[in-house]
Amino acid sequence: MNDLQQQLAAIVGPAHVLTGEAELASYLTDWRGRYRGRALALVKPGSTDEVAAVVRACAAAGVPMVPQGGNTSLCGAATPDQGGRSVLVNLSRLNRIRQIDAANNAITVEAGCLLAQVQEAAAAAGRLFPLALASEGSCQIGGNLSTNAGGVQVLRYGNTRELTLGLEVVLPDGCLWNGLTALRKDNTGYDLKDLFIGAEGTLGIITAAVLKLFPRPRAVVTAWLAVADGAAAIALLGRAQARFDARLTAFELISRQSLDLVLQHIPGSRQPLAAPAPWQVLLELADGGAWADLQADLEDFIGGEMADGRVQDGVLAQNETQARQLWALRENISEAQKIEGLSIKHDISVPVSRIPEFLDLAGTALAAAFPGVRVVAFGHAGDGNLHYNLSKAQRQDNDAFIAATPQANRIVHDLVARLGGSISAEHGIGQLKREELVRYKDPVGLDLMRCIKSSLDPRGLMNPGKIL
Amino acid sequence: MNDLQQQLAAIVGPAHVLTGEAELASYLTDWRGRYRGRALALVKPGSTDEVAAVVRACAAAGVPMVPQGGNTSLCGAATPDQGGRSVLVNLSRLNRIRQIDAANNAITVEAGCLLAQVQEAAAAAGRLFPLALASEGSCQIGGNLSTNAGGVQVLRYGNTRELTLGLEVVLPDGCLWNGLTALRKDNTGYDLKDLFIGAEGTLGIITAAVLKLFPRPRAVVTAWLAVADGAAAIALLGRAQARFDARLTAFELISRQSLDLVLQHIPGSRQPLAAPAPWQVLLELADGGAWADLQADLEDFIGGEMADGRVQDGVLAQNETQARQLWALRENISEAQKIEGLSIKHDISVPVSRIPEFLDLAGTALAAAFPGVRVVAFGHAGDGNLHYNLSKAQRQDNDAFIAATPQANRIVHDLVARLGGSISAEHGIGQLKREELVRYKDPVGLDLMRCIKSSLDPRGLMNPGKIL
Repeated sequence: MNDLQQQLAAIVGPAHVLTGEAELASYLTDWRGRYRGRALALVKPGSTDEVAAVVRACAAAGVPMVPQGGNTSLCGAATPDQGGRSVLVNLSRLNRIRQIDAANNAITVEAGCLLAQVQEAAAAAGRLFPLALASEGSCQIGGNLSTNAGGVQVLRYGNTRELTLGLEVVLPDGCLWNGLTALRKDNTGYDLKDLFIGAEGTLGIITAAVLKLFPRPRAVVTAWLAVADGAAAIALLGRAQARFDARLTAFELISRQSLDLVLQHIPGSRQPLAAPAPWQVLLELADGGAWADLQADLEDFIGGEMADGRVQDGVLAQNETQARQLWALRENISEAQKIEGLSIKHDISVPVSRIPEFLDLAGTALAAAFPGVRVVAFGHAGDGNLHYNLSKAQRQDNDAFIAATPQANRIVHDLVARLGGSISAEHGIGQLKREELVRYKDPVGLDLMRCIKSSLDPRGLMNPGKIL
Repeated sequence: MNDLQQQLAAIVGPAHVLTGEAELASYLTDWRGRYRGRALALVKPGSTDEVAAVVRACAAAGVPMVPQGGNTSLCGAATPDQGGRSVLVNLSRLNRIRQIDAANNAITVEAGCLLAQVQEAAAAAGRLFPLALASEGSCQIGGNLSTNAGGVQVLRYGNTRELTLGLEVVLPDGCLWNGLTALRKDNTGYDLKDLFIGAEGTLGIITAAVLKLFPRPRAVVTAWLAVADGAAAIALLGRAQARFDARLTAFELISRQSLDLVLQHIPGSRQPLAAPAPWQVLLELADGGAWADLQADLEDFIGGEMADGRVQDGVLAQNETQARQLWALRENISEAQKIEGLSIKHDISVPVSRIPEFLDLAGTALAAAFPGVRVVAFGHAGDGNLHYNLSKAQRQDNDAFIAATPQANRIVHDLVARLGGSISAEHGIGQLKREELVRYKDPVGLDLMRCIKSSLDPRGLMNPGKIL
């Protein structure tokens, strides 16, 4: 053990410092297996004070730190570089629910809590913590905060940023900032917490947060609707919002090709309507009143849409089992696509009004550049956020197509930029999109980011090589 | 005219540079008349490019700049200091609505638009811009953004921060940051916009913003309810949220003394219930469905509350006129208090769950320290935000009491701090609360604020003497 390793062992206890190649292996690669790094050690502090002491020791030694939660980043944000000089600071042991204040609709949690653990603690107090993601059983709330994670209920409840009231952060010099307020209104100076949310651990290590809770809806109703095209879907969204406003908790768009993949590859999947449609919308409402009333309201709304021919067909879940079956069709798209083979993935957003234009223009441009390309488009249309994944049907064709990723990215991302959109709606930048960021971000905005980074972390020790 | 004044005149045209004492007078004092400053000149740029050129000229001359909108700050945030070296940068001529995208529920406005103008533009497009304040006819949106203004609908729609999608900002060196995105999701690096929102012009000059719009509710219903105490009000809030969730758009708490002042001083005011109660709640619901349905739901809810004795009495507005009469009782409290005489004002927040404790402890401590003190407590209880104003009934007593402001502040603010609250919930810091900020803010947080200030504005030229 070298000097720093010994100091770290003294801080957290020798059992919580890993240095061997075999014990480190699973922490050195990312969830999608795109990156493999090296590290001097992995350290698992057991308290905020230990995190601060670890940061001070690393800072004194001039050693870079890579904060790591559940290691589920889709962009390699929690994987160290190849240099082998970094220390991985793993937050898993900071996993206490510190406090629940149901009357204030707030919960104070440590960074290493699993997202599912936060959801369960809220439920046990009769409340809802609405952040919900595919990886909720393994991702940690510190990672959700550092990525500003999204998910399927952003339409109603916002991103992780909007769900956060306060933060506790260990700064790059090892000082502890206590910003754990539980207030809905606080105008005492600069908004510090939002600097750390979405910063992917490059400005400090989030150790705890105060998060918003909500009443648990008594009634949830779910519908699966067939529409002709993107424009019809977005027009439907507008009318659903006018009628139901914040009771509209989800509005997911699913292309026929996405649905077909699920029906083909996921056992037990069943087409919910008589005939497949070019586009499907999965829509959910939630309310604190009686289920039957909400269901009747939704039936009335959909009846009107169908009578006017604006929705071609539709089905309402009659119970929770049916609702879960509809949701499974949406949630299994990524899994079905994985079974089918590799694809080029995009996580883009545009103004909601421009989704139809994006779908038309991107589809046309890609078909021209890559004849036979298969577009699997689906996602959070209510937020202007689509997952837009491309592949080719034949294995050999697809290998050549995957090799052309930069050209495909250029078509998709140039169009996104032209429509005023974002090349990363909810997954962050990490290592994966650093170069794309430089290409598309406003240069003055990039300079501002660099200015903030160099003033908070002048030696560049916090998660180097991520974002900037 | 000195050299800089000539440069400014060359940029914006001589008609838009004021230098005479008389023409400047109204811009040099704040709305409440607490501060009176001096300035080298007031300049009214007509475009973002002119703002940038003005900032470059001032920066080159080393001259401080004070951005000013409608000059309605309650904390002296837009008033220059006594030095007379500053240039007032008045944004009034940047008053165009640049774009409305109803399908994306977004509006792009320039900083000098009146808040009421933004509300009207939204209404003309069939949408709601929900920010609503007493000064909406004269305050400008740039000031609302720089103060992170609150108001009566924060419970449903959030503060100005939550209503903002993108910003355009002229930085202290005159560079223009174009962050005018209209996206619900964008995780491409640090959250820059939230640094400028609530920064009171100390980090740059906001020149334009993209703001969120919402569907216009078809139905709005209003009730006035009598409850026994703060604890009963907060328990009622919890049940109303469980039943109506985001359809609950306002939950205002009004003490009997607040109501009595209005009944006494505002002509035409009428006690809405048979007997006055110690505390009244003004509650509003909004929805996209039929008015009669929503009214019936609220009647049902209030009926249950009254049957259980948790609400002592209540009345529902039967039409818009009655609703406006109920709201006038709430909105005229400040005016009635002004007629009564001077008062010591506080704009505090605590976790919603601690409002009852705050009211009890503050009332007891103040009565002990200042026998006969009159507490006028009212405000946005649903957000944990109270306006808590203190006075004495007799003129001479009151003069002595006003002179004891620091001692009264100490009692109120020490308690707020102990309960995890904020000494400025929605009015900001400005000049008024700088010393209180240093006393109550986490010192590491203050250092972070200073670090950000000195990295973005190393020469301290942007609105000096405000916040920090």
